[in-house]
Amino acid sequence: KINADRLWDSLADMAKIGPGIAGGNNRQTLTDADAEGRALFQKWCEDAGCTMGLDQMGNMFARREGEDPDALPVYVGSHLDTQPTGGKYDGVLGVLGGLEIIRTLNDLGIRTKHPIVVTNFTNEEGTRYAPAMLSSGVFAGIHTQDWAYGRVDAEGKSFGDELQRIGWRGEEEVGARKMKAFFELHIEQGPILEIEGKAIGVVTHGQGLSWTQVTVTGRDSHTGSTPMPMRYDAGLGMARILEQVNAIALSHAPHAVGAAGHIDVYPNSRNVIPGKVVFTVDFRSPDLAVIEDMEARLRVEGQRIADEMGLEVAFEKVGGFDPVAFDESCVAAVRSAAERLGYSHMDLISGAGHDACWINRVAPTAMIMCPCVGGLSHNEAEEISREWAQAGADVLMHAVVETAQV
Amino acid sequence: KINADRLWDSLADMAKIGPGIAGGNNRQTLTDADAEGRALFQKWCEDAGCTMGLDQMGNMFARREGEDPDALPVYVGSHLDTQPTGGKYDGVLGVLGGLEIIRTLNDLGIRTKHPIVVTNFTNEEGTRYAPAMLSSGVFAGIHTQDWAYGRVDAEGKSFGDELQRIGWRGEEEVGARKMKAFFELHIEQGPILEIEGKAIGVVTHGQGLSWTQVTVTGRDSHTGSTPMPMRYDAGLGMARILEQVNAIALSHAPHAVGAAGHIDVYPNSRNVIPGKVVFTVDFRSPDLAVIEDMEARLRVEGQRIADEMGLEVAFEKVGGFDPVAFDESCVAAVRSAAERLGYSHMDLISGAGHDACWINRVAPTAMIMCPCVGGLSHNEAEEISREWAQAGADVLMHAVVETAQV
Ligand SMILES: NC(=O)NCCC(=O)O
Ligand SMILES: NC(=O)NCCC(=O)O
Repeated sequence: KINADRLWDSLADMAKIGPGIAGGNNRQTLTDADAEGRALFQKWCEDAGCTMGLDQMGNMFARREGEDPDALPVYVGSHLDTQPTGGKYDGVLGVLGGLEIIRTLNDLGIRTKHPIVVTNFTNEEGTRYAPAMLSSGVFAGIHTQDWAYGRVDAEGKSFGDELQRIGWRGEEEVGARKMKAFFELHIEQGPILEIEGKAIGVVTHGQGLSWTQVTVTGRDSHTGSTPMPMRYDAGLGMARILEQVNAIALSHAPHAVGAAGHIDVYPNSRNVIPGKVVFTVDFRSPDLAVIEDMEARLRVEGQRIADEMGLEVAFEKVGGFDPVAFDESCVAAVRSAAERLGYSHMDLISGAGHDACWINRVAPTAMIMCPCVGGLSHNEAEEISREWAQAGADVLMHAVVETAQV
Repeated sequence: KINADRLWDSLADMAKIGPGIAGGNNRQTLTDADAEGRALFQKWCEDAGCTMGLDQMGNMFARREGEDPDALPVYVGSHLDTQPTGGKYDGVLGVLGGLEIIRTLNDLGIRTKHPIVVTNFTNEEGTRYAPAMLSSGVFAGIHTQDWAYGRVDAEGKSFGDELQRIGWRGEEEVGARKMKAFFELHIEQGPILEIEGKAIGVVTHGQGLSWTQVTVTGRDSHTGSTPMPMRYDAGLGMARILEQVNAIALSHAPHAVGAAGHIDVYPNSRNVIPGKVVFTVDFRSPDLAVIEDMEARLRVEGQRIADEMGLEVAFEKVGGFDPVAFDESCVAAVRSAAERLGYSHMDLISGAGHDACWINRVAPTAMIMCPCVGGLSHNEAEEISREWAQAGADVLMHAVVETAQV
């Protein structure tokens, strides 16, 4: 069993970097706080006897040597970046849980045949730079590195420039590493484990996602002196499309979700009818056909609303991934570890996207989930218990050690 | 008649300061560009032999002496600040039209008994600092100066600090001046004059306004892993309230308008269900009872929607003024000036709020409107013709000179 107090303390220490405004974190990718968090993680890894690798996307790889240095390493990890108003565990638990495995193996003097590598993937959250899971996506060959470098944030700063600026652009070619397996521990970010009273979610699948950026264009004009019939109100158009987004997702209940988290209104002045609104619709389902149906209906309904109102509308897909089925033998390793350790468990479909979803394309992969209070995540009030962290990291360690062979 | 070429050139010179992104202007109140525009206006006024007064709200008063310096001055003017994506004429025509009167009277060697004062009121637009017409409102005793100084922009900078920073805070007590009359020339910002083919709008009334800031609070959570029935989506709540805003305004058609120009979504991240949305509803009508009805129904409908969705909602009135009836003898002076000059004209209700609406509380006031192309304003593409500017300024001069007595 891992040392739960030490893991808990490290989680608390990391949470001091990039504090939020309500007890959580704002350690968005490629900010100064991100750089500071990376440096602390590197120091901890080196103190634990690991060597640090860094690739051209800023992905970090802390390696504990195996008895057979030529054997393919077993990888574990997740991400250290957070939402602008994010929690202390989303991603961080998976990275520091991986580090805790290494510390525990060191304590116990256990050597594995295969090396173990703990990773921190850059820009998992996708808030500052869409899409989410950007750097694991480049690692898995989904996106090109040039395309990723050219992604820009809301202020027009590019991913490539910001990675350089914070000093975490490495030399190593992205995706050159081969993995025996990859395991990611993550909080559920949903309510099911807590409701079912299970300590461990054995993640068999991940739902797919589609992000469509919608631009509604009307005409800026005066809110007072423009007669109602002469208005081209892009804000009202957005409102009507949002109602449809909700209806489309509900039409597939309970196998789909949909919402818009990002909405920018231009010029955003109290007495100007919005001339333009840009927003991103997030649709998800474990069923690819459902995602495709929702995406298509968004375009049809959005166009109909725009036509009725004399507005223009444009749709751009800015992110997405297909539903994922994780590797059966890795999933079995997780399930049997939970079994062996006597933790209550159930099979689960991940509601969120994770680096594991992309790594699954290039290596046998599985995920372990632990509950979070009220299913709440992407919120500074995100919370887990020390016992849940312990159970998740214990299962992670057993699955990893079994795969890496003592 | 005024010198239309000179007026047109001055309008073009002022438009060079704080250029927009699409041919218009971004010379928002209390920015460096505002300071630059003020300095140019002051220079022009001094070149025309005027002395400049400046009050503690930054309101500017360029005075041309009368034959009887103790006689109450006749005031003309408007505002030089613009929307973030504003036009070149909204406000500016009224200030520079006033200056053009003085230049013309100088050319013709005409002296008036009463002094003439051209004013530039600070923060008419209300975008950076709500409410609109802030400084004419303090002048008229509607708001206290302390309250106005404490207004903050989206970055938290206060009106008082920014006025000091740009160097345009004067010593003069606000509202101490007494006016024989006030005349404001302004573009219509609506389509009626152009549709009716009239050169001059004789403004008899102004419609009233109510700005209600609505804060919808839900719960930030993950767009992927939060089941639909567990969502508290403040964005969807906002969308439903916007639909009601439109329906409420239409229920009073054609005697009311309604929209929201300002919408801020928090934390505004693609994969976070909005936990909070703040937006401002703009309702207007020439009928006070209609405004009160719309305001009340917004609160009822907003509360009903919030209750149905498990959201919180709060309403704050952040601006407003009652419908205005302008002074009958000033209105008559405008109408007879148009008549005398042979310009086609019609009586008009102003759809927008203007400094004249507040000044009307403390002095006999009237407004003159000229058409603008397509009724378009609060848009960089706002346009007028030189002939329309000429007609408006001619009528302004005749009304002013009649009141100021040769
Ligand atoms: N786990 C997580 O929140 N990842 C971000 C990508 C997503 O929105 O699912
Ligand atoms: N004229 C004008 O646009 N004034 C701003 C106040 C308003 O929104 O009516």
